[in-house]
Amino acid sequence: MTSLFKQMTIAGVGLIGGSLALLAREQGLADRIVGLGRGEANLKLALERRIVDSVTRDPLEAGRGADLVVLATPIRAMAPTLRAMVPAMPAEAIVTDVGSVKRWVIGELEPILGPRMAFVGVHPIAGKETTGAAAADPKLFGGHRVILTPSARSTPAAMQKMEAMWRASGARVERMTPEVHDQILARASHLPQIVASALAAALLDARSGGFNPVDFGAGGLRDTTRIAASSPEMWCDICLTNRDAILAALARYRGTLDEFIAMIDNRDEPGLKEMFERGRVMRAGLK
Amino acid sequence: MTSLFKQMTIAGVGLIGGSLALLAREQGLADRIVGLGRGEANLKLALERRIVDSVTRDPLEAGRGADLVVLATPIRAMAPTLRAMVPAMPAEAIVTDVGSVKRWVIGELEPILGPRMAFVGVHPIAGKETTGAAAADPKLFGGHRVILTPSARSTPAAMQKMEAMWRASGARVERMTPEVHDQILARASHLPQIVASALAAALLDARSGGFNPVDFGAGGLRDTTRIAASSPEMWCDICLTNRDAILAALARYRGTLDEFIAMIDNRDEPGLKEMFERGRVMRAGLK
Repeated sequence: MTSLFKQMTIAGVGLIGGSLALLAREQGLADRIVGLGRGEANLKLALERRIVDSVTRDPLEAGRGADLVVLATPIRAMAPTLRAMVPAMPAEAIVTDVGSVKRWVIGELEPILGPRMAFVGVHPIAGKETTGAAAADPKLFGGHRVILTPSARSTPAAMQKMEAMWRASGARVERMTPEVHDQILARASHLPQIVASALAAALLDARSGGFNPVDFGAGGLRDTTRIAASSPEMWCDICLTNRDAILAALARYRGTLDEFIAMIDNRDEPGLKEMFERGRVMRAGLK
Repeated sequence: MTSLFKQMTIAGVGLIGGSLALLAREQGLADRIVGLGRGEANLKLALERRIVDSVTRDPLEAGRGADLVVLATPIRAMAPTLRAMVPAMPAEAIVTDVGSVKRWVIGELEPILGPRMAFVGVHPIAGKETTGAAAADPKLFGGHRVILTPSARSTPAAMQKMEAMWRASGARVERMTPEVHDQILARASHLPQIVASALAAALLDARSGGFNPVDFGAGGLRDTTRIAASSPEMWCDICLTNRDAILAALARYRGTLDEFIAMIDNRDEPGLKEMFERGRVMRAGLK
């Protein structure tokens, strides 16, 4: 592929940012790749692994010459990071992000842009349990979904370049509004996280008769709480920035849970069978 | 090992019953193993795989000569099955079960026993996603926990034999009261099942903007709803027979969930971090 960008600057060379950088290099999407970060050790590793061509801890240096800036930091760090880079960025730079909340992020970032800059919000739905530049992998996105959420500052030219870049990852690229994205992800990702974390938190110190339930759960407990191991900081950010959609998803779930509780209380056998069956059907539809 | 029993009759030659039969054969725990069942095809398979020496669909024939009867049917079928076998069973037979609810099962079964029979409730915490005699595996229990729940009719001699049998499986054998068992399992197993099934049920038909959240959940949704694929009949039985302990566990979980919801609603950042951290700590303690 002929390169799409002269210089791609990645703010946050972690799992997602680093994987995108490796992909860009592998596919020749950018002539030069610059990594902006705060942690000395991670930047050093990013250089050693040749994930980026150069690294810096200075936002102005990172912004200089970047016709594409990818914000791959924690979501609440994106606005301050961009604000510090903008003065040095080319007038027509494209800015994108890879955060898992879109409406809030767009609302924060678009007002910071220079008048001729463009913005495209993107959410690559991919991840693994490891983090940092050490975990970066150009194949991370293949086969997964990547959602583009066009907003006021998404020019057709910027949309086209972002679609071309993400199509090169082997991902399935979709478009939706930021609002629909946030609702869908609140249900599909943020809700399961809170459900799993609440279950795990409820079972901490839940001893009975000197025994700890945690020792007797087998595979079901293990699967259901697996994601409770995720970063508290990241999930706190998501709860605060996708608050309304998450509260709506939680209200929906709590309604189902309350129905379940009432059915057990009332020994409602047909109701219980139907409820478990509904869960079974949903699960059977999961690829 | 010298054999513990002349004849072990297994009612329900499924995953657990069949695995125990294979273990008994491998370890020489019983001179003869008889399978009682209802499904022609499964019994045929149990014979073909040499899981049992003979099969029957007649409870009286199955009870005759059985100094050990293992009830490995669905829990609500145990009492009728035992009632039909008792008239043919030796006067001093030992009866045991492998159900995942103990207080209710013991209350159902002990009154059915002949005056000199003994009963030991057992719960081997093991399973896999496949079922039936085809899935039976003598190694199923190794490394897992097996809980014995002594009750009024558990004689010291019967307890000793059941402990010897289960120790031979390579499992970690524990004793607890039926009440404590039911509380611990309500928290460690029944609660996660209801949480997972309620989440899956809440996400069935939860489209937004023409998109189905189920398509955008990635690994977290997949892990958290994995056990929602389990048998509705089995879980309906468990909800009805361990009702009080499950309602108590659900009340505990719902309290934690409500705290979570209030924290998101109030944008309580320190509270949210602590809650996610509690979940992370519990999860880190899971072996």
